[in-house]
Amino acid sequence: MRLQRNPQLNANGELIHLLSTEGLSKAVLTHILDTAANFVSVSDREVKKVPLLRGKSVFNLFFENSTRTRTTFDIAATRLSADVINLDIARSSASKGESLLDTIDNLSAMAADIFVVRHNESGAPYLIAQHVAPHVHVVNAGDGRHAHPTQALLDMYTIRHFKGDFSNLSVAIVGDVLHSRVARSNIHALTTLGCPDVRVVGPKTLVPGDMTQMGARVCHDLREGISGVDVVIALRLQNERMSGALLPSAQEFFKSYGLTPERMQWAKPDAIVMHPGPINRGVEIASAVADGPQAVILSQVTFGIAVRMAVMSIVASHDA
Amino acid sequence: MRLQRNPQLNANGELIHLLSTEGLSKAVLTHILDTAANFVSVSDREVKKVPLLRGKSVFNLFFENSTRTRTTFDIAATRLSADVINLDIARSSASKGESLLDTIDNLSAMAADIFVVRHNESGAPYLIAQHVAPHVHVVNAGDGRHAHPTQALLDMYTIRHFKGDFSNLSVAIVGDVLHSRVARSNIHALTTLGCPDVRVVGPKTLVPGDMTQMGARVCHDLREGISGVDVVIALRLQNERMSGALLPSAQEFFKSYGLTPERMQWAKPDAIVMHPGPINRGVEIASAVADGPQAVILSQVTFGIAVRMAVMSIVASHDA
Amino acid sequence: MRLQRNPQLNANGELIHLLSTEGLSKAVLTHILDTAANFVSVSDREVKKVPLLRGKSVFNLFFENSTRTRTTFDIAATRLSADVINLDIARSSASKGESLLDTIDNLSAMAADIFVVRHNESGAPYLIAQHVAPHVHVVNAGDGRHAHPTQALLDMYTIRHFKGDFSNLSVAIVGDVLHSRVARSNIHALTTLGCPDVRVVGPKTLVPGDMTQMGARVCHDLREGISGVDVVIALRLQNERMSGALLPSAQEFFKSYGLTPERMQWAKPDAIVMHPGPINRGVEIASAVADGPQAVILSQVTFGIAVRMAVMSIVASHDA
Repeated sequence: MRLQRNPQLNANGELIHLLSTEGLSKAVLTHILDTAANFVSVSDREVKKVPLLRGKSVFNLFFENSTRTRTTFDIAATRLSADVINLDIARSSASKGESLLDTIDNLSAMAADIFVVRHNESGAPYLIAQHVAPHVHVVNAGDGRHAHPTQALLDMYTIRHFKGDFSNLSVAIVGDVLHSRVARSNIHALTTLGCPDVRVVGPKTLVPGDMTQMGARVCHDLREGISGVDVVIALRLQNERMSGALLPSAQEFFKSYGLTPERMQWAKPDAIVMHPGPINRGVEIASAVADGPQAVILSQVTFGIAVRMAVMSIVASHDA
Repeated sequence: MRLQRNPQLNANGELIHLLSTEGLSKAVLTHILDTAANFVSVSDREVKKVPLLRGKSVFNLFFENSTRTRTTFDIAATRLSADVINLDIARSSASKGESLLDTIDNLSAMAADIFVVRHNESGAPYLIAQHVAPHVHVVNAGDGRHAHPTQALLDMYTIRHFKGDFSNLSVAIVGDVLHSRVARSNIHALTTLGCPDVRVVGPKTLVPGDMTQMGARVCHDLREGISGVDVVIALRLQNERMSGALLPSAQEFFKSYGLTPERMQWAKPDAIVMHPGPINRGVEIASAVADGPQAVILSQVTFGIAVRMAVMSIVASHDA
Repeated sequence: MRLQRNPQLNANGELIHLLSTEGLSKAVLTHILDTAANFVSVSDREVKKVPLLRGKSVFNLFFENSTRTRTTFDIAATRLSADVINLDIARSSASKGESLLDTIDNLSAMAADIFVVRHNESGAPYLIAQHVAPHVHVVNAGDGRHAHPTQALLDMYTIRHFKGDFSNLSVAIVGDVLHSRVARSNIHALTTLGCPDVRVVGPKTLVPGDMTQMGARVCHDLREGISGVDVVIALRLQNERMSGALLPSAQEFFKSYGLTPERMQWAKPDAIVMHPGPINRGVEIASAVADGPQAVILSQVTFGIAVRMAVMSIVASHDA
């Protein structure tokens, strides 16, 4: 009996869509990181462009607004010499009652090559990937609470850059894990890449129960959570996404889980601090940490461009 | 006595603006369709670009928001290698009380080559065309209830592609003809190209009285309207444009005029079904028809890019 | 004792940011105008592009919306072959509570080369310029009531184009001087370039007291203000910026300060009339003047593209 194939891979096991870090092998993840390494230098050049996607059409389909993430994909595609179409979906035909797949069919008929999709509903990029023609590719730029694979990949790139490899690392993910697609995507990537100790740290109201099954250790105490770790990934407190009283207040959160220089001493002396941004100073992280020598938050942003260039160039080179 | 010249043509009869299909000769329309045929293949290439408009500035002036139509012009201009400036006019100086022609003068002074204009007032693109310098060109992307010539041209391209020529065809345009600039532009194009049997089909409240003068036969009964036709063009029910009680309800409309597989049997067996999009499933068209073998709706979209490339490259090659 | 260096210049006195015309030497201003002269012809070419900034990333950071000004920078950067990222800051992470400098750090980490900044707070571009890395450049596209240096430079270009040089000129700036960053930037530029007679003209409520110290003569009577001048710069009545009762009404303003053909006879017969746009016909200027032979308002727009190309190419060629 033949297993259901991962929708992200073609029959040769090559990446044709990036929908989630879940289900991708260590080899596939490593190939993306290795490819990204070649692209990091492009952004340092006098002419920051390579012609790999020249004449290709990349559609940024942001059903949920995110200027920052959209900009990173826009830059990555432009540096690959693609033509980028930014679609303000909230104001377009989607609001005229057209279905998601009818919108996709229409844009595909304009000869799209890559759809970069951000959607507030989990699974929307999967739906699109299963629908498009074999030469069209989908990159998930964040779907609901489900996944944010390019963020996870740039996090993995950053960790590998600063720590060499994953086989002896302890990594703590701290904060609003419940609402975080970043946390989920990172846990999948870390365990696949061989990280032996992944911890999720936060109050009971913000750390869901299924984390243990995913291979992460749950800690509700910050000291225990970051004790001896090599990497601390602070999550953004998603104020705008929280409904009701999961949390007393931002100040309350900082008092128990905010990263301060004092608390960072619980981690290894050479531990790095990461954050997907934008940071809330004085909520999940103190300014002294965010601006301090252990923070690699801006390196994440820089590597993020290279990782997105890698993902787009890889999927574009394979047909379904 | 010299006749008033058509503002779309120069003294040599060459197309310098595309404002309406009305008043354009069969030769001019056919030249656009023939040129478009050369561009269809560009979107299939590895590098989807030709350098025809390199270094030209195309301004998308959308006084009325339409992400979909704007995107098609953006893509068409980009594939001709033009630089595209998208102006969100609703939020710009127009709202600071500047007049339409002052806005145009300003943008012209920035060395614009082509203005693609969408406006909710009929005639606005004419006003602009009469005002601009001889080397500047205007393409109407829809003005009020008046005209939508690139949509009509892509419809003509689609019909010619599937049916060969117009001289023996019966074409039915079904639905909200009253509010449809697409319907008007299509009737002009069809009669000019020699289509002997053009019918407009819809309830009395949605089919205006001047249709007969334009050379179309008015039918209020769907069966009579599509009986034996080669082409059915379903129009979008413009819910957002209707004021008051011209129509009982969308369901009511579907009951009398919605295209279903059963009703499509009244047309020729090889009839094609077209729609300008976005479609309202279950209102003007049943899903079984929209997704069925007779529908050529997505081909219209594909041909639309080529037709817009043709129009822009033709007008840009002629001075007034 | 070493003087505090002007933040716009590097140790060699070369322009690295354009923040204000204040504090720039005649040599620096003249270099910009001379460079712009070379770019005026680019917009007349068949292919309106030069490769000077190919592969550079220009970020348009408009914290205050201005489609017109953003468009001029977009076009100028595109004609230098740069890649342009337009950021709708009002809807982005700034609204998620991120600080200005955190936003800048993030975008810098994406390998930005030039930030074009419009901000409603005076001084914001200075803050950014002092913060960025040595190879990153800031161009002020208008900050609060403080400065609008590219507008002033295009005004200087226009005056020099039509009047040759500044050493014998009388220039009157008429209208809402109080709210006008254009007026301030123009006064600095005119006095630096050697203009011996700069007048600011308007009602007491709209002409601030510090104008005399800046080297301008204050006139509250229009006849006295424009009597014998070579250049009249009419300012836009900033209706949207005025709070309360500084002014009776637009009609009242026109009665006392509006430029009409009759009043223009008080100036020199060959005087030119300028305006930063968009013009309010019948408020600060009569249509007969705006559309008349003395108006050079559209030339200002054309020269504005060349001046912005000059500024961006100059700052990009120097490191801090």
